[in-house]
Amino acid sequence: MSPFTGSAPRTPDWQHLRFEVDDGVATVTLDRPDKLNALTFGAYADLRDLLAELSRDKSVRALVLGGEGRGFCSGGDVDEIIGATLGMDTAQLLDFNRMTGQVVRAVRECPFPVVAAVHGVAAGAGAVLALAADFRVADPSARFSFLFTRVGLSGGDMGAAYLLPRVVGLGHATRILMLGDPVRAPEAERIGLISELTDEGKAAEAAQTLARRLADGPALAYAQTKALLTSELDMPLAAAVEMDAATQALLMTGEDYKEFHAAFTEKRPPKWQGR
Amino acid sequence: MSPFTGSAPRTPDWQHLRFEVDDGVATVTLDRPDKLNALTFGAYADLRDLLAELSRDKSVRALVLGGEGRGFCSGGDVDEIIGATLGMDTAQLLDFNRMTGQVVRAVRECPFPVVAAVHGVAAGAGAVLALAADFRVADPSARFSFLFTRVGLSGGDMGAAYLLPRVVGLGHATRILMLGDPVRAPEAERIGLISELTDEGKAAEAAQTLARRLADGPALAYAQTKALLTSELDMPLAAAVEMDAATQALLMTGEDYKEFHAAFTEKRPPKWQGR
Amino acid sequence: MSPFTGSAPRTPDWQHLRFEVDDGVATVTLDRPDKLNALTFGAYADLRDLLAELSRDKSVRALVLGGEGRGFCSGGDVDEIIGATLGMDTAQLLDFNRMTGQVVRAVRECPFPVVAAVHGVAAGAGAVLALAADFRVADPSARFSFLFTRVGLSGGDMGAAYLLPRVVGLGHATRILMLGDPVRAPEAERIGLISELTDEGKAAEAAQTLARRLADGPALAYAQTKALLTSELDMPLAAAVEMDAATQALLMTGEDYKEFHAAFTEKRPPKWQGR
Repeated sequence: MSPFTGSAPRTPDWQHLRFEVDDGVATVTLDRPDKLNALTFGAYADLRDLLAELSRDKSVRALVLGGEGRGFCSGGDVDEIIGATLGMDTAQLLDFNRMTGQVVRAVRECPFPVVAAVHGVAAGAGAVLALAADFRVADPSARFSFLFTRVGLSGGDMGAAYLLPRVVGLGHATRILMLGDPVRAPEAERIGLISELTDEGKAAEAAQTLARRLADGPALAYAQTKALLTSELDMPLAAAVEMDAATQALLMTGEDYKEFHAAFTEKRPPKWQGR
Repeated sequence: MSPFTGSAPRTPDWQHLRFEVDDGVATVTLDRPDKLNALTFGAYADLRDLLAELSRDKSVRALVLGGEGRGFCSGGDVDEIIGATLGMDTAQLLDFNRMTGQVVRAVRECPFPVVAAVHGVAAGAGAVLALAADFRVADPSARFSFLFTRVGLSGGDMGAAYLLPRVVGLGHATRILMLGDPVRAPEAERIGLISELTDEGKAAEAAQTLARRLADGPALAYAQTKALLTSELDMPLAAAVEMDAATQALLMTGEDYKEFHAAFTEKRPPKWQGR
Repeated sequence: MSPFTGSAPRTPDWQHLRFEVDDGVATVTLDRPDKLNALTFGAYADLRDLLAELSRDKSVRALVLGGEGRGFCSGGDVDEIIGATLGMDTAQLLDFNRMTGQVVRAVRECPFPVVAAVHGVAAGAGAVLALAADFRVADPSARFSFLFTRVGLSGGDMGAAYLLPRVVGLGHATRILMLGDPVRAPEAERIGLISELTDEGKAAEAAQTLARRLADGPALAYAQTKALLTSELDMPLAAAVEMDAATQALLMTGEDYKEFHAAFTEKRPPKWQGR
């Protein structure tokens, strides 16, 4: 993505989620606590479109994704999504499933780290959203349920069959996606699904702390690290090493690299500019 | 694979392994307990051919692979396989090694989950068979020995150098395949090689329980989950997300998805049909 | 690589590292203990060139890479590397970063196992060198710091964004490469970054013991295991299984396979020749 913009206006108001920005840290909150933040068609579309807009906004350097109330996100709404899809024709079904996949691609491909703050249930599409994030900051109440087969669908929803084996290995991923049983915080931490386990009720705060650190740091270096991690999952070693060389040569011409050297020489902390 | 059949008859009698089907659950038992279920040329060929036939049989919805007697499988028979290969010419050696690889491909590509029930030794080709399964249900006596280098061969036998790094990570896989040292149950569980650790002597029973759950569940959803997990190990994210979208759109037209919604609405458990 | 040689002479003297060979085991020691073995331009180039020469030398069957003094390697020298790169033009920057990547490729592609003996700090390029090795034998003082973002650069340096997710999974790798925080020995062992954890101060000795075992064993089998592990990270299963079949058919014509069978029959340990 690139900050160059054309004629398209910014969206003035996000109706299906809560959105704030504070000095480089964007926070997106799923905000239907009475429905455990179940996703609607509008919420998927807003996530997709918001991430695309933020990807062109150089001022955003980290994003926290969390849920209001008792849990993170219970996934697609049984009435509003499952019920509605039963009345859709072939093309509509494909359009809907492509949209959910586009949200995951947007999370993986946006040029800033995404931190999921997970407490309580992260189920279905909610579990995949957390999985797609760069960091999963979770408290002991967190429960990841990739429950797709339990509604008669494939466990490989929104890229889950791509991402989960790369995070926890094929053995655990097969068990989790095939059976749809919940993965509670202790197991999630043991198998590498949680990036940072916090005290009870502290996931949102810890996610903000991490996002603040990322936003105040060398943001271009973080963005390129994310881009390389994402790309090199599917690339031979020789190509990856060449991509690293070009990326590193580029960053060696940047302001932050100069600043590190100056600060090191002057024995002071660097003042990162993110470029 | 597809259930459409042509002129080829079914094999009336499997001579090199024991085979039963019980209401959707197939059970294949390696049955040479006096030789720790060492594999012969006939056993490899029967595994390959049986899996191909079962892949066309819609009534099979889960398969358990186990071993009679003191262990799961000690691998290729030293006399009948290693001795015999020493007298083979180039083309025969390639034919034999292609056949063993075809067994692994058949386990990964058949349209139903395969549950390995592992007790005692799973060595050489026996370890790779267990590795290729979707689930490894093992008791504390289980011991995985990828001992190929100990007979002077490559640790990358039958896809082991492909599969093991994707299950336990490259570091563990390198150590295990290069040195050929046994991996006992506690380590196997810790590194993600075991899907379910049972009490002593309970692997076969637990494997049947799991297979029963799978066979009675939404079998088409499981089959597609397996297909996506297998395919998306080697596919870019964008392609995986598109494949998920098409698969999910398809399953949303299926009977089990409708049935989930009806059962949820009527507050009763779903009656899965597997299609 | 291949042992066939042409006109190029062997390098008589390695000026930027210490090098010994003892009966099949090569030992490379980073030897600037006053600088925590910080790497210089000459050290990178020597590592690249030495590995290329050793790859043509059939007498080398295992290599130990270690560091003199208080730690393994603190990475690129702040003055000699970072300072110098600030004065480089585009082409020079690319040349430098390609060279460091070539070292990692040489470690992954040389036809013998590489054992990193890690004590104390393994930072920056030092951490990636250890990561590229086939085995990481480490003592409790070991500390892996992928600190690239802390100097304003991408965490994907020298293939780290390719290798680390394949060793510890994408979740841990993202956290480690993005933040640059040190990974101490207990965590490194838990997530699969350490192959063998030794007692305090025993990493070098244990690495030599492992390398001796490898050098005295079926070296061609080890070399092919390494080649398959490296290649099959980025290959579909069908291709991997075919590559395994051809490799195994080849090794079944080798001396060590015959020797295993003879030794087994005569109830004696095999005398490996490594071919």
